Parts: sequence; C-alpha cells; structure tokens
Amino acid sequence: MTAAVDPDRSEWDVVVLGGAAAGENAAQYASRYSGLSSVLVEDHLLGGECSYWACMPSKALLRPVEVVDAATHLPGVSARLDAAGVLARRDLVINGLDDASQVKWALDTGIDVVRGYGRLAGERTIVVTRPDGSTRTLTARHAVVVDTGSRPAVPDVPGLRAALPWTSRDVTTMSEVPRRVVVMGGGVVACEAATWLHGLGAEVTVVHRGERLLARNEPFAGEIVGEELRKSGVRLLPGRRLSRVERSDARDTGEGRVHGGEVSVTLDDGTVLVADEVVAATGRTPNTGDIGLETVGVSPGGYLDVDDQQCVRGAGGTWLYAIGDVCGRALLTHMGKYQARIAGEAIALRAGGSADLPSAAAGHTGLPQVVFTTPEVGSAGMTERRARGAGLDVETVEYDLAALAGTYVMRPDYRGRAKLVIDRAGDLVVGATFVGAGVAELVHSATTAIVGRVPLPTLWHVVPSYPTAGEVWLRLLETLRAQRRAE
Amino acid sequence: MTAAVDPDRSEWDVVVLGGAAAGENAAQYASRYSGLSSVLVEDHLLGGECSYWACMPSKALLRPVEVVDAATHLPGVSARLDAAGVLARRDLVINGLDDASQVKWALDTGIDVVRGYGRLAGERTIVVTRPDGSTRTLTARHAVVVDTGSRPAVPDVPGLRAALPWTSRDVTTMSEVPRRVVVMGGGVVACEAATWLHGLGAEVTVVHRGERLLARNEPFAGEIVGEELRKSGVRLLPGRRLSRVERSDARDTGEGRVHGGEVSVTLDDGTVLVADEVVAATGRTPNTGDIGLETVGVSPGGYLDVDDQQCVRGAGGTWLYAIGDVCGRALLTHMGKYQARIAGEAIALRAGGSADLPSAAAGHTGLPQVVFTTPEVGSAGMTERRARGAGLDVETVEYDLAALAGTYVMRPDYRGRAKLVIDRAGDLVVGATFVGAGVAELVHSATTAIVGRVPLPTLWHVVPSYPTAGEVWLRLLETLRAQRRAE
Repeated sequence: MTAAVDPDRSEWDVVVLGGAAAGENAAQYASRYSGLSSVLVEDHLLGGECSYWACMPSKALLRPVEVVDAATHLPGVSARLDAAGVLARRDLVINGLDDASQVKWALDTGIDVVRGYGRLAGERTIVVTRPDGSTRTLTARHAVVVDTGSRPAVPDVPGLRAALPWTSRDVTTMSEVPRRVVVMGGGVVACEAATWLHGLGAEVTVVHRGERLLARNEPFAGEIVGEELRKSGVRLLPGRRLSRVERSDARDTGEGRVHGGEVSVTLDDGTVLVADEVVAATGRTPNTGDIGLETVGVSPGGYLDVDDQQCVRGAGGTWLYAIGDVCGRALLTHMGKYQARIAGEAIALRAGGSADLPSAAAGHTGLPQVVFTTPEVGSAGMTERRARGAGLDVETVEYDLAALAGTYVMRPDYRGRAKLVIDRAGDLVVGATFVGAGVAELVHSATTAIVGRVPLPTLWHVVPSYPTAGEVWLRLLETLRAQRRAE
Repeated sequence: MTAAVDPDRSEWDVVVLGGAAAGENAAQYASRYSGLSSVLVEDHLLGGECSYWACMPSKALLRPVEVVDAATHLPGVSARLDAAGVLARRDLVINGLDDASQVKWALDTGIDVVRGYGRLAGERTIVVTRPDGSTRTLTARHAVVVDTGSRPAVPDVPGLRAALPWTSRDVTTMSEVPRRVVVMGGGVVACEAATWLHGLGAEVTVVHRGERLLARNEPFAGEIVGEELRKSGVRLLPGRRLSRVERSDARDTGEGRVHGGEVSVTLDDGTVLVADEVVAATGRTPNTGDIGLETVGVSPGGYLDVDDQQCVRGAGGTWLYAIGDVCGRALLTHMGKYQARIAGEAIALRAGGSADLPSAAAGHTGLPQVVFTTPEVGSAGMTERRARGAGLDVETVEYDLAALAGTYVMRPDYRGRAKLVIDRAGDLVVGATFVGAGVAELVHSATTAIVGRVPLPTLWHVVPSYPTAGEVWLRLLETLRAQRRAE
C-alpha cells in the first residue's frame, strides 16, 4: 500500500483495475485533463508487462542485435556485441524490476495507487485483497476501467508444464543466455525472441505449426524474416508440433524456478531436440478469469466485448470500461494506450454531462505494428486477406525495397519488400506492410495516410526524401499506375 | 555519342538539356508513359550531381559514420570504422564515376542519349557541341526541358580560388581523407561534410558567417547539430568570415589539380587556421549562364521562373520547361524529380491535347528534407519563421525526443527535438521538424499530414507504434492540447 494514499479512503471517481501502461493512461486522462480522482489497483509492478517483460526489455535486447547486424553488413565497419553488457543495459531499461519511478509518476500526476489484487464485487465496486490477505473495498463514483492484461498461454503438450518452460517474461528478463534454446511458436514474440537469443549467442531452433512465420502479416513478411533468420543460423522447423517434452529435474522451489538440466523435445515427426531451455511463445490468454466479472453479469475468462468508447457490453450502463489486451482487439501497448485515452476522455466527458464522445473506431483502422526482427516488419491497417475478408474491392501493389537508392546506401545486401492494400471504392490505402531495415519509423506515414484517408491522387504529391527507404512510396505509386494502365 | 542513337536524327518530341536525375525522370514520364520520343543531352555523366557527387557518395560516406556512432553509444556494443573500406564502398556506390549503367537504363527505357554541351538556339532548337568541337542541331517537336543543375559557388575571398579549394564534388569523391580540413559554410553540405570528414578521422574546423548552423531550418536544428558536432570534436567558428587564404604551390595541371601543401586561412577576427584542404560549401549557382536562354527571350545566369507545370515564364508559349536546381525552388534531388514528373506528364498531356494538367504546387507544400548529420535533421513544410512570413496565424508545439521510450531504447544518450508548426485557420500542420537519430524515415509521416491536409483532430487517431521515435507525434499532440487548455 503506497503511503501517500489515505488507507481509509474508499471512494474515487475512477478505479482502474490493473496499473499497466494503458491503465496509467486511462487514469491520467480522467484525472489530469478533467479533474476526476482516480486510483490504480495493481498487485505487482506499476507499468506492467510492457515496461518490465515485453516492449521495453525486448527492445533493449533487440536494438544491439540490430545495430551490430547493420554494422557488420556495411563495408568499412565492424562491430562486436558483448552479451553481458547488453543484459546489463536491459536491467537498466527495466529499472531492475523496481516500479518506484512509475509510482512516483502516478502520485505526481495526482493518481493514487493501491497495492493488491482487485476483483469486481457488483456495480462500481472493487474488493482489493492485500498482500497480507486482508481486504479493502473501493467504490467508483463514475467508472471502473479493467486493464488486467494477458498472460502467456502455455499449450497442453505432455511434459511441457512440468519442464517449466520459459515464457515471454523469462526470455526478456533472463540473467544469462542459454546455450541451446527451442522456441515454440511463429508469431511476433517467437520471432523477436529468436532474433535476440541468436544475436546474443544462443543456438536457436524455432518450431511452429504453420507454413510460415508471422501468419497475421502479409505472407512475404514471414517469408523474408524466416529466410533471414535461417541465413543468420537459426534453425526453423515449420509445420511441426511438439509431441512430448522431458526434463528430469525441473522444479519450482517457491523462491524461484530451478530449471534443472537439459530438456528433450520430441516433435510430431519424430525429431528430438535437446536444449537448455524451451520458450513457449504460443499466444496469450486474457486475465479475465478471476476478476469478479460474474458479479456484474459479464462472463469471465474470455476477451471483453467493448463499444467504441471502450465500455464493456452487457455490464449495464456505461460505468464499466475495458482497455488493452483484455479487449482482444490488438494486443499492442500503443493500441491499449490509445483505447485508454479514448476511455479516459469518455469517462471525463460523461462525468461532465457531455454526449459528444470520442470513438476508438477511427484509430483502429490504422492499427500500426512493428516487429523488431532483422529485418523489421512494419505494418498498418489491413492485410490483403483481411481486406478481402471485409468485402472490400481490393487492389494491391508491391515493390522490392532493395531496389531503392536509399536502402542500397544503408547496406549492399539490403533485403525488404513493401505492399499497399487499396480499397478501389474510395481509391484509398487501407493497408501497408514494409519489411526491411529502418522501416519502423516509416510505418507512421502509412498510418497517417490510412487514418487520414488521404486519397491516392493526393499521395502522388507526398514526395519522399531522397535517399531514404521512404522512397518506396513513390515506387509503389508508380508501379500502381503502370498496373492500372496495363489493365 | 551513344552508338544506339542514329547520328543523323535531328528531331524528337522532347529534348532534355541535362541528363541528371530530374532530367532522366522528365524524359521517362514523357516517353514511357505516353509514347513521346525523348533525348537527353549530357556533356558529362548521365545521372548527374546526385549520383556521383552529392546524395549518393555523401550517404555512402555518412551511413558508416552514423552506424558506428549508434553502436559506440549503445552499451554492450562496440564498433570500428575503416576509412579505406568506407572510401572503397563509396567508389562502388558511384560506380567509379562511370555512367554506363545509367546509359543502359535510358536506352532500355526508350530514351535516347546525345553526348555534348547543349545550348538553346531559338524556340525548340538545341545546338549540341560535341566533345570534338563539331556541332549538331536537335529540334523538339513538343518541348525542351532544362535540367542543367547548379554548381558550387566559390566566394570571393582573396587567395581562395588560387588555393584550389575543394567543393562538394571533391569532398564526396576524395581518394584519401585529409588530416586537417577547414570547411567554409554552415548549411547542409558543410554540416554533412564536417560529419563524415570527422567520422573518417580528419581534424575539422567549420567556419560560418551566421550565429548557428542550418539557418534555413528551425533554430534548434542547427543548435543541436552544432552542439553534437562540437562534442564529437569538430571545432566550430560561428559568426566568422574568411579574410585571406594562402597556399604556395597549388596549381591545375590540366590533368587534374595539384593541391600542393598546406593552406593557411586567415579569418576576419585574425584567427589563422592551417589545414591540408579548404572546402567551400557556401551555396550554389544555377547553370543557366551559358545555355542560350537569351535566344528565347529569357535572361541568362539566374534561377528560372516557372509556373505550376514547370513551364518557364517569358519564353513564349508552353514549350520550354525547367526542373531541378535551375528553378531555385528547392535544391533537392527528390523535389527536382517531383518537378520532372509533373513536367513530363504535362508535356505528354499537352501533346495529347488535354487541358487537365497536373500542378507541382501541391507537392511544394510538403517540401521534405533530411540532413544526414549525427543526429539527423528531418523536416517537412514550413518553419515557424516562414509560416509567419507567409502571414499565417501560427501556433507551435515542441517536444524533447529523448523523453520517449522509443528513443531511450535506441541509445541512453539520445539527443533530439521535434516541433510542429500549425496553421490555426485550418487546424492543420503546415510544418514539422524532427532532430534525432532515426528521424529520416519519420519525415514522410509529416509530409503526408501536410500535403494530405489531415486535420489535427484526425491526427489524434493516428496512433504511433510503441516503442519508436514516431511516438513523438502523440506527445506533440498531447502537449498541444495542454497548451490550448492553458490559453
């Protein structure tokens, strides 16, 4: 319990269940910008997954790998990576798993913090179980915001749980680099973890069920990332599942896990892999099973269905909001924070009697994401598949990013590709994918074009700087024009 | 004379005077997309300044410096630069000053190439003086496009010309790195050259007249670049002019320059600098003095005044176009190429009898530029000063790029700043400046917002990916909102 919060106080305007990045933003928007009082209920670290076990540590581990890769593929430059130095820097980035600075930020912003595990207990009521087992009841005058996030889903493979597999939390906070690692999964976490583990010196094998990596992206993204991982020395085993995992002496001491000796992984095709750690990077489960949703008429355990102001449908009225991973819309920090801004503003405006509310729908058409692999994958809006699924009259155009002056000066062996998904009805870009070094910052141009609904004839006048990777916009538009002439 | 061109042919639809990047684009747009025949008249290398002495070699020299800087400031990574290796890579990037591949591109694209020095000789007529002194007359059925570019302006300082100073061409194509260099000037070329010369091991002194570097950008751009250059060890002497230059044995042998021994530079405050080379990076002069403009009623020597289709005003009719540096609008390859696309299209459409012509005006509101210093400066649209000068009701907002998670993971000592210039009348962004590592690709988001006229309330829904430098957009908009509340 933070000393600065009155231990007898029981009512706030807004109670936020879960003090991760999105929850902090919702409280900030409700408090700082409108004067509503708010409190964050958090049973672990304020700042949550993103600050300590996801975005921040992963990028702290990936950035050195990216820089060394860029350097070693550029004639005239050589670079070396020191794994211990990288891990030490990662520790700084996650503040040694100490959230004091985030608590200070909250209190300085006028947001209270209550430590403990919170559960809904009827409308606008939260019961917090303190670390010592005692409870405390909080009432929200205006709104409860659920931001309890998600946790790694460990699949049901015989022997896997008993072998104490690593999850995203372990692989981001590891204190040393295992010699041999099997990564299960082909999504963002699997691809990024494979990149940094290999970059830091591990022998990495990635086992995934699908044909290609990053299945939610355009197919070429996973193809290129897969080929480059392979080239760098990562072993990829697509279309395979784990049948059995064995590890003799793994145990949880209560103080922490003892991972024991090597682990033996048997695949469905009979392949046996021997490793020092297995990383389960096979999706996530929303933390909605034990937060008292049943007391307000909402089914627990699943993703929460929300409206455009992030209000949970079925809870009765407009007092229960949900933001971030629990909504299942886009498990990305920046989208959770976006939802938080919308929710915080909607709460403040409703408290003030306004009916002119913001909508999160607009921002979701942009949906940017960067996968910080080598090369990076940056995308915004819809893939071709999703756009077709949505019934749009779709046109696409692709271009080889390596064919640009701006990427050739970056490195002679530049590898990349870009694609636009166009809705013919409005002559608008509705999706964009860029694969290649340096595309992380290019994504925002696509998000701007998509959300801003900038028509293609206008994009023609949006001149990219020479020589940058952004020049791909010009080439895509020229190629599109040639395609249309040929039609 | 290229063998593939009929030596007796005298008429084309379009004659392009100057085969630099923009000229190539104009010919391409007139030829490939509309079937008009075109010819490039070039007396030196096809591809021009950008390919051999500007963008391409400068970025080939700057990229290794940037990568090594990024690496050495990231804990856990170390990097080294080998100047000879960097110069060798630069040679590859400029194809050893051989334009065979560009000539092949032109011929493959259906564009003819005539070697020699071209001059206008009345309407739609070009006389080419061949390398052997003989002449050839070309007639343009539809249009002549002037793309003769610009050359470095060497200022009138006593002794400077006799000392055979380096210009941008020499400093981009140098075969070895001088030990001590004095760079005259504070603009883009001076700042970039100082960056790569210092990065490659030279002792660099920059002498410039103004108070700060990069005077055409927002003031903080030059301040930050100056401070970082200083920190890295470059000596900056602002507010100073050269009074006298002495070098005893410099001479031009005809085969090439013999730069002789060391050069002594005396400044107006009495400071004497001794160096191995002096680089004049003090602006450029359009190559319009000796191209026969007087034969068509246009004054020679200055920048050419063009309309929105790039037609030269005062030449009578719509047959004479000018693109690139000769227009003096924006001495940037990508803007020259943009003008070329507009001109090429306008020529093709006019030849087809269409009155629905494209306009270059729209693209000029975006005006993106990247200065590839360490840190980079990326800008689009207008500076605050320019916007106020244009009579707009201006509002501005700034944010420290180092305060972002996305830049902190890049390097702990990240240095940067961002600014938006807003036109209150339309609640539109009309200018943006970003200083910092990795901003080169972020500029296109600003250009998209400016040219696409995406209103600020919509930009609020353009979510930046976390953690990237692009997150500065969110912070700028939040700060703007707080400013507006405080008003």
